[in-house]
Amino acid sequence: MSRTVTSRAERARQVADVVRRHLTEGAFEDGWLPDEAALARSLGASRNAVREALALLRDEGLITRRRGQGTRVVTPKYGHGLDRLAGLAETLTGYGTVTNEVRTARVVPRAPVSITERLGLPEGAEAVHLERLRRLGGAPLSVDTTWLAPDIGRPLLESDLAHRDVFDLIEETSGFRLGRAEITVHAVTADPDTARLLEVADGAALFAIDRLTRLPDGRPVDTEWLRVRADRFTLRAVLHRGGHPASAATDEEAAR
Amino acid sequence: MSRTVTSRAERARQVADVVRRHLTEGAFEDGWLPDEAALARSLGASRNAVREALALLRDEGLITRRRGQGTRVVTPKYGHGLDRLAGLAETLTGYGTVTNEVRTARVVPRAPVSITERLGLPEGAEAVHLERLRRLGGAPLSVDTTWLAPDIGRPLLESDLAHRDVFDLIEETSGFRLGRAEITVHAVTADPDTARLLEVADGAALFAIDRLTRLPDGRPVDTEWLRVRADRFTLRAVLHRGGHPASAATDEEAAR
Repeated sequence: MSRTVTSRAERARQVADVVRRHLTEGAFEDGWLPDEAALARSLGASRNAVREALALLRDEGLITRRRGQGTRVVTPKYGHGLDRLAGLAETLTGYGTVTNEVRTARVVPRAPVSITERLGLPEGAEAVHLERLRRLGGAPLSVDTTWLAPDIGRPLLESDLAHRDVFDLIEETSGFRLGRAEITVHAVTADPDTARLLEVADGAALFAIDRLTRLPDGRPVDTEWLRVRADRFTLRAVLHRGGHPASAATDEEAAR
Repeated sequence: MSRTVTSRAERARQVADVVRRHLTEGAFEDGWLPDEAALARSLGASRNAVREALALLRDEGLITRRRGQGTRVVTPKYGHGLDRLAGLAETLTGYGTVTNEVRTARVVPRAPVSITERLGLPEGAEAVHLERLRRLGGAPLSVDTTWLAPDIGRPLLESDLAHRDVFDLIEETSGFRLGRAEITVHAVTADPDTARLLEVADGAALFAIDRLTRLPDGRPVDTEWLRVRADRFTLRAVLHRGGHPASAATDEEAAR
């Protein structure tokens, strides 16, 4: 059996996939891509396919092209590991300085029912609401909306939310070590307001990450939505065919 | 300290986040959302915020709204666990039948250098190229582009690629058990060709998942790009603050 329905657009996409991988791996150290002819040679593709692939990657915001100057990497993509629970600043150590513009930091006397339910609080209970615009090396990376159980969140309002991860602060001020988090990762397009905050085009691809973090005893204390620029960020994991013995157990816990 | 810069757009986004979570969890079993007033009450939000939130979710392709008829769930979102390595059909068992339209299935005599490098093959070696459009319950879910080492891929060309996962087929025809995979998850917007194949609007959000799968001895045999409709699909994981003892070891392996 030998079948093929490879269109020109498909070939361009395949070339774009390879170059995107190189970009993610930081392969173009000086910030410039080889010229079209050199790329075509090394990728075993036609000049046309390379040209169309580079147009796709430009539309994703990964590169810029200027006639006579060549093709430039706009921004490397930072990989966030899915192997352990870590805050953004922790993960991105070495990539640059993470700073946070604190847009909201307050106690909400009667938190929305959807929040109290998720945090296992009585209806009408207070909760602490944070919203932060996070920057890496000066450029916006994510908008994080966080709701915390009041005993965990109140001490954080006096803390250095502009420079520290919430996870670190919780562990420092509460004396509790965090346990585990259940995360659900969505891909979405940016609405105009989020696009403005993150300095991307309307409709640009974003990750929207829904994360519920628990203390070691299982109590949920931190529910968040992280909206992350997809042109600057990837998620990485190593998966095993059998699964980890450890994760089988935690799946059961998560399903409770 | 009590600060807040909560705009109307932000409130709508927050409401949309909660409703998106409910949609992901399959909370609206009959396929219809409560009316705006009921949603506003249960979410502790204004009618305006609810209305704008539903407009955002409509733009994401998750719901449809028709005057006088109410708000309908277009499609539930299917969660793919990141705890173990599984094929799409394996993961989605119970959600519906996965079928594959085989668009390409062939031996490429001289595979592109980017492929032979990734699979650890000599330059100029052959490789097996598959492209499949995958459907769940009849509607397109993903376009998967796969390159396989020739000894692993050749037997698959005679197999039932329309109905079976590649992982299953590899294990069955080769007698090898798969080991682990390194995955990198990107969020991208759909180019016109991919949009047409997946039956979504140009610019709709997609996951682009780069996956390299190895045999237990570490040999890479399968490199893929999966492009998955983000309106039908999420990724899930349970993360631990300390990391799994097992994953610490596998990180080292992956870094080799």
